[in-house]
Amino acid sequence: MFIPAIKGQGTEEQHEKWLPMAYKMQIIGCYAQTELGHGSNVQGLETTATFDPQTDEFVIHSPTLTSSKWWPGGLGKVSTHAVVYARLITGGQDHGVHGFIVQLRSLDDHSPLPGITVGDIGMKFGSGAYNSMDNGLLRFDHVRIPRNQMLMRVSQVSREGKFVQSDVPRQLVYGTMVYVRQTIVSDASCALARAVCIATRYSAVRRQFGSQNGGPETQVIDYKTQQSRLFPLLASAYAFRFVGEWLKWLYADVTQRLQANDFSTLPEAHACTAGLKSMTTSVTADAIEECRKLCGGHGYLSNSGLPELFAVYIPTCTYEGDNVVLLLQVARFLMKTVSQLGSGKKPVGTTAYMGRAEHLMQCRCEVERAEDWLKPSVILEAFEARAFRMSIACAKNLSKFSNPEDGFSELSPDLLEAAIAHCQLIVVSKYIEKLQQDIPGKGVKRQLKILCNVYALHLLHKHLGDFVTTSCITPKQGALANEQLRLLYSQVRPNAITLVDAFNYTDHYLGSVLGCYNGNVYQRLYEEAWKDPLNDTVVPDGYLEYVWPILKQHIRTARL
Amino acid sequence: MFIPAIKGQGTEEQHEKWLPMAYKMQIIGCYAQTELGHGSNVQGLETTATFDPQTDEFVIHSPTLTSSKWWPGGLGKVSTHAVVYARLITGGQDHGVHGFIVQLRSLDDHSPLPGITVGDIGMKFGSGAYNSMDNGLLRFDHVRIPRNQMLMRVSQVSREGKFVQSDVPRQLVYGTMVYVRQTIVSDASCALARAVCIATRYSAVRRQFGSQNGGPETQVIDYKTQQSRLFPLLASAYAFRFVGEWLKWLYADVTQRLQANDFSTLPEAHACTAGLKSMTTSVTADAIEECRKLCGGHGYLSNSGLPELFAVYIPTCTYEGDNVVLLLQVARFLMKTVSQLGSGKKPVGTTAYMGRAEHLMQCRCEVERAEDWLKPSVILEAFEARAFRMSIACAKNLSKFSNPEDGFSELSPDLLEAAIAHCQLIVVSKYIEKLQQDIPGKGVKRQLKILCNVYALHLLHKHLGDFVTTSCITPKQGALANEQLRLLYSQVRPNAITLVDAFNYTDHYLGSVLGCYNGNVYQRLYEEAWKDPLNDTVVPDGYLEYVWPILKQHIRTARL
Repeated sequence: MFIPAIKGQGTEEQHEKWLPMAYKMQIIGCYAQTELGHGSNVQGLETTATFDPQTDEFVIHSPTLTSSKWWPGGLGKVSTHAVVYARLITGGQDHGVHGFIVQLRSLDDHSPLPGITVGDIGMKFGSGAYNSMDNGLLRFDHVRIPRNQMLMRVSQVSREGKFVQSDVPRQLVYGTMVYVRQTIVSDASCALARAVCIATRYSAVRRQFGSQNGGPETQVIDYKTQQSRLFPLLASAYAFRFVGEWLKWLYADVTQRLQANDFSTLPEAHACTAGLKSMTTSVTADAIEECRKLCGGHGYLSNSGLPELFAVYIPTCTYEGDNVVLLLQVARFLMKTVSQLGSGKKPVGTTAYMGRAEHLMQCRCEVERAEDWLKPSVILEAFEARAFRMSIACAKNLSKFSNPEDGFSELSPDLLEAAIAHCQLIVVSKYIEKLQQDIPGKGVKRQLKILCNVYALHLLHKHLGDFVTTSCITPKQGALANEQLRLLYSQVRPNAITLVDAFNYTDHYLGSVLGCYNGNVYQRLYEEAWKDPLNDTVVPDGYLEYVWPILKQHIRTARL
Repeated sequence: MFIPAIKGQGTEEQHEKWLPMAYKMQIIGCYAQTELGHGSNVQGLETTATFDPQTDEFVIHSPTLTSSKWWPGGLGKVSTHAVVYARLITGGQDHGVHGFIVQLRSLDDHSPLPGITVGDIGMKFGSGAYNSMDNGLLRFDHVRIPRNQMLMRVSQVSREGKFVQSDVPRQLVYGTMVYVRQTIVSDASCALARAVCIATRYSAVRRQFGSQNGGPETQVIDYKTQQSRLFPLLASAYAFRFVGEWLKWLYADVTQRLQANDFSTLPEAHACTAGLKSMTTSVTADAIEECRKLCGGHGYLSNSGLPELFAVYIPTCTYEGDNVVLLLQVARFLMKTVSQLGSGKKPVGTTAYMGRAEHLMQCRCEVERAEDWLKPSVILEAFEARAFRMSIACAKNLSKFSNPEDGFSELSPDLLEAAIAHCQLIVVSKYIEKLQQDIPGKGVKRQLKILCNVYALHLLHKHLGDFVTTSCITPKQGALANEQLRLLYSQVRPNAITLVDAFNYTDHYLGSVLGCYNGNVYQRLYEEAWKDPLNDTVVPDGYLEYVWPILKQHIRTARL
């Protein structure tokens, strides 16, 4: 919680400088952007920073209840300073949102400074999760700070109150976003892998039904219904890992280009990371809960590890860009790319496939037998054609509106679907690219290929309507894909445990009785139960005082 | 927690008798069926009740760790008695699972009786939810009970140890299941309506983006992306309510028939309630979380009411029949029904449509314009044809297997989808039936019709692959349905608040700051925050003792 990089206005290098400085200055800082009434729409923030040329100060003020800062981590009880985002006003003119360093609490006794109201916003989802995080609220009543506490890399206010924009490229903001969001994609893979590891191991331990001649019952992992829910999630965990690795490369590439003042790939990289952040976190959030259900009743126990994982994970769908808002940004970028086709401006990076417009509109899937679906080229073309045709269909429908913004708004549910199709294509294509590389370990590549096919074909089955209605595949080919998918599940099964062991999570890190490495689940569940404080006494406290009189028919006279 | 109706072996009437008796006897009882290793497969329970003819007693015993009773509510710390399900063994022969009344704790000092080990199983999902429920574990070490504590309505053990089955029809068990599951469907509607009420009201309060000329921003409920996620859930809440009402009638009908020894409708009623329990609870669990996400960041606050609602609700997908296991039962019933077509045995009740096999295999949807999708007959036929063709396709694929059980197991993911299609058809058809009745209130029926169409068409869009690949509709007709859906959202919008107000939930019952009736959300969020105990002090306890030394650069010497 020491003052972090100033988002979008700093670099990692500055971050490195800030930390020791913050230590030295004996301050704890937080990043105060979100307000009670404003999250996604940063430009709508209401807190004001009005320049007073007489004293060379900014007056920070919360003009409304909804302008209260709300949610920043570490703000309520701990931070001594904050980087506050507020509307800059000089000479009566509003220059939009800028950052200001504001001291909140005394460095002597930690009490809030005059004009500062600060506190905790209250309990959140789950029994643990973010309840150990001091998410805070903050209001300002005309708090004055020196002019030099404005973050002035991009814009400056002079002693006279003149507002000046520097020539630092504004696009740098997007570089930071690319960085943050690519880490979120990698984290999604880790969280998903944890949930899948727990559910897969316990599915091998748990047996239910199917006992023959008094023998043991069937391991639930052998049921096709279990496999059809679990193995696509296992495949997704690997798929997200590979796309996460690729995003690391992308960020390095973007950074290098920014340093050389080359902004050409930035919009595409920004759209791509925004979309992948949205898609992977939405899938992971749902998947953790699905893994919990796959563990049956015991998944509901806290010591299964899944409730806590879920409660900690789900805010990811909202923070750093609401997942729906981000997909709409992707859709906007796709529509722009489509509109520029044929203009000579070639689509780059993950939209390069759109350059083969004619082919993608005409191609017909050549699958005749189930095993044809194992060819990477077949899968890739189907996903490319589907994504492209969905974008084209949206663009066509948009063109019927006289006001493009009205059209975008009206068709936004369809645009979301087109954006998702595009993001799924990215993940599928990066997985296929990964498989073209050398992968050490005997048989490892073969297993990863199987999972790649599971990933692609389960998406194809789930979104069958997209593929068929855009004529990318025929209903018959859809049925063949489904048939192949079942065969693939059988091929995943023998190595399923190895594939989750490969994540190399310790029992301590997993924090799950159901997912423990040695599979001694029931013994551990039993032992864990006795550790519950309720079991410290055999007769629960208060029983004889309160329950006893009721049982002894004093029920009518008891004061309860 | 007083001894409830003995499931499947009692009636509501018996239930009524039990309660006062339990009071009089000063006992608290629970229903102990589930074991650590056995939930869905009741026939696999391991606890034994061995008859000892020498003493006229049963010896109740837990032979393994996995036979520990696990999960029963009220078992761990409170219950004095339990109805224990155990394998009946007489003369060395296993007669399967039966119920036995067993005293667990002394009525004098509440201590566990000899041979009884009893305790709480530990923390569960959420901060509240089932953590206020004493879910317990229980083990027996050769505990003896008199013979007359076996529940002997269906089977008896004589003084000599002879096992006798009475002529009480076994099907009565299913009558109780129909009862319990129909209440779960009604409860699903209530829980879903609560979540939707919160999300809808807050979506009207919350504004984000779209400010023009400094005016207020757009209410998020006006965004099509919000509508396309929220309104289908609103429609589902109504749809589940109507199907729940119909299930009440079904249960009354089944009960009447059972009393007249008419078991003819029981299998269909059982399959229907099992399927609807599964489908409505799965949808509701997911929908509560979706409503939370629809509230943006603030949905993550406990006082939004949604985290607790979710944590309390989700076990419904597992208890009273795991949702996947139940759908497989429905699928089995559908396959049986298909196999009997043409045999002279007419499909009844909710499977009656299968009697029109020839028509449903040949019919073609006649939609030419978007508004054609508003006709109930068009919708109904599309859903009937889709469900029927999916069942037929499964049956055809099953027939390719020489061993039907192998086929059922291998094709179970497809069978699940066919079962879901059938259940969705039931809900759609019951909603349409409801609209054929008189509905009081000016304009009410019109609104309910709009929601009915939203319910049906959003399902059609979601499962477009099903409808198109079975040739029930063309891709063009699918696009028209989607177009109509967008128009319907616009028609829901003006009455959305009224439609959730109509659920008539008090603020107290809703328990949600975001969903409060008067919409004064931000003021209440702010006030609620200050009630958090962390805000009792301005400087948090321990700050000066522990954080201060670190800030004062004693960091290297501090013992933290």
